[in-house]
Amino acid sequence: MAEVRAVTLVGSLRAGSYNRALWRAAQANAPEGLVLEEGTIGDLPLYNADLQPPTVAEWPAPTARLSAQVAAADAVLFISPEYNYSIPGALKNAIDWVSRVQPSPFNDKPAAVMGATGGMWGTTRMQYHLRQVGVFVNLHFLQKPEMLVAKAAEKFSATGELTDEGTRKVLVQFLTAFRDWSLRIKGSR
Amino acid sequence: MAEVRAVTLVGSLRAGSYNRALWRAAQANAPEGLVLEEGTIGDLPLYNADLQPPTVAEWPAPTARLSAQVAAADAVLFISPEYNYSIPGALKNAIDWVSRVQPSPFNDKPAAVMGATGGMWGTTRMQYHLRQVGVFVNLHFLQKPEMLVAKAAEKFSATGELTDEGTRKVLVQFLTAFRDWSLRIKGSR
Amino acid sequence: MAEVRAVTLVGSLRAGSYNRALWRAAQANAPEGLVLEEGTIGDLPLYNADLQPPTVAEWPAPTARLSAQVAAADAVLFISPEYNYSIPGALKNAIDWVSRVQPSPFNDKPAAVMGATGGMWGTTRMQYHLRQVGVFVNLHFLQKPEMLVAKAAEKFSATGELTDEGTRKVLVQFLTAFRDWSLRIKGSR
Amino acid sequence: MAEVRAVTLVGSLRAGSYNRALWRAAQANAPEGLVLEEGTIGDLPLYNADLQPPTVAEWPAPTARLSAQVAAADAVLFISPEYNYSIPGALKNAIDWVSRVQPSPFNDKPAAVMGATGGMWGTTRMQYHLRQVGVFVNLHFLQKPEMLVAKAAEKFSATGELTDEGTRKVLVQFLTAFRDWSLRIKGSR
Repeated sequence: MAEVRAVTLVGSLRAGSYNRALWRAAQANAPEGLVLEEGTIGDLPLYNADLQPPTVAEWPAPTARLSAQVAAADAVLFISPEYNYSIPGALKNAIDWVSRVQPSPFNDKPAAVMGATGGMWGTTRMQYHLRQVGVFVNLHFLQKPEMLVAKAAEKFSATGELTDEGTRKVLVQFLTAFRDWSLRIKGSR
Repeated sequence: MAEVRAVTLVGSLRAGSYNRALWRAAQANAPEGLVLEEGTIGDLPLYNADLQPPTVAEWPAPTARLSAQVAAADAVLFISPEYNYSIPGALKNAIDWVSRVQPSPFNDKPAAVMGATGGMWGTTRMQYHLRQVGVFVNLHFLQKPEMLVAKAAEKFSATGELTDEGTRKVLVQFLTAFRDWSLRIKGSR
Repeated sequence: MAEVRAVTLVGSLRAGSYNRALWRAAQANAPEGLVLEEGTIGDLPLYNADLQPPTVAEWPAPTARLSAQVAAADAVLFISPEYNYSIPGALKNAIDWVSRVQPSPFNDKPAAVMGATGGMWGTTRMQYHLRQVGVFVNLHFLQKPEMLVAKAAEKFSATGELTDEGTRKVLVQFLTAFRDWSLRIKGSR
Repeated sequence: MAEVRAVTLVGSLRAGSYNRALWRAAQANAPEGLVLEEGTIGDLPLYNADLQPPTVAEWPAPTARLSAQVAAADAVLFISPEYNYSIPGALKNAIDWVSRVQPSPFNDKPAAVMGATGGMWGTTRMQYHLRQVGVFVNLHFLQKPEMLVAKAAEKFSATGELTDEGTRKVLVQFLTAFRDWSLRIKGSR
């Protein structure tokens, strides 16, 4: 079977984050043919064009490494909370860095987004903002199914394990749809 | 005359940024009754709840300082480029930090946003995303006039001075409307 | 006490709509000083500039009537479902008509939006799109509290009466905040 | 060569509309393999679930006809102005009708959007709102290139012919990219 290697950007830097827990659950539940690896965003400096020499090799090391990782991936998966009704600054900062490489590591790649929240409504607003970013960087986002895990305290254990079987099934469906969408986009290039 | 003291957050960290040039032009053209000061965002760490002890005094110094500065201001002015069709990560990161203080330093304050771009279309997409953030943090944005400086290379000199008289007049109108809107919101509390 | 007269635009044309039920509940629970009346949108033709003579008196009668009603109101309240992750076409069509009158009947007025849905997530996406419309027509939307009634089947009776006491209390808070915001905006003109 | 048959929805009902002129230019400049036909939206009633019997055959005739036309098409092209920073009500109303057919005529189809404006900035805000609608109805929008025709009075003749050669070339590139994207999506089903 054809394989999709997706780099995953997790929008929360907090160790105990529900979105980090969701990331671990995604790894544990990835269907055959979908390989997930994480791209680290927490050690990047704030984007500043003055720190961005013409050659990527001269960029701050974490930004060059992340850019290369995205460039090498077949697809991009975002797992993120919503901060103030939009994308967390740290995640947006990572996108801002990677997008500056020429040619763009994001260009013409399949993508998907999901998020977890302790509340009831969250992460959709972040998801639509991220999809608009995708227009600029030419990421092809999976439209359906959408996935957000609400009331996360009822879905994860105190140690951050996904314990809700219904959520686990939806996660598998989501990841399977992401794999299939990625194969469609990749295979049709 | 009543006075409005507005903290200004500039979304670009680059020294030669058109938005930094626009910030200097705003200072030079502020109407009577509007006092503008800058809030520094470039030295903040990436937001991470693990770095955020319960007491603001224990926060990383630049985040505590910026939060106090926003809390002490009457109004908030954003001057920012658009990165990847949204808010620059560095600016969003600053908002994410400040928004975590309780009570929120942004709450019930008047605000305005403008931006400069070398291109033709930019910064509106950033502006609408920022306005959505304002819903969550309860900032009351000036609706009209909107201001964006397109084709900035034709409006600023090589040393970053606003040389276009038409743009300067629009800037004065914008800042005057921001002052008046701020007085309305502040005076009606 | 000063009074706010608000015209209400209900985004669903269906007789049994939850949003129509919410509109009746809003009337029944309006606090002192807030008078709500409905603006009819269901009998408007689709907006077409060719149907729009220079003088409003010559416009199709329902469009002229609605425009005059909005012009006479102190504030605008939107109560609407979300269709396809955005504003219902019928509601947007009404806004498109009214916005064409010069001077705009919406200009510099306070506004608020709420919505009901049978599902769990809905109406926020509609609400943010509507807020963006507000930037153009210069409506000053209440930011907080936001209100959406999810799982409406559990909150309303089969005959469309608001039976959930918790929701009723939140509705009163929302309408009171809308009244107070309207008084602030109106009083500061 | 494989062929893409795309139904086109034009967001302005005005006979002399720039977007109608752009639609004629699109037909005249469609590349080989892209067949464009128009779906009429101007004769639809305002969407009202009470007018929507379970069987599409019983729907108001224009809504049933448009739904069938979209269902039969390979792809959907939107050509629209921006009204009040969002989608024209008439166009959104057409989408609201078509989306109610089960299975949805939009589902899993490629799509693209462009627009013309007499002004400088317009139609991008409409385009992003339309793209968000696409998430719900599962349309796969072309991300790049984006196309908007600004200062339309300089690009079209008084009789509505596209006279600007630069714009014509960009239009051909856009339509070619739309054809190729449609073939990718269709071919990978």
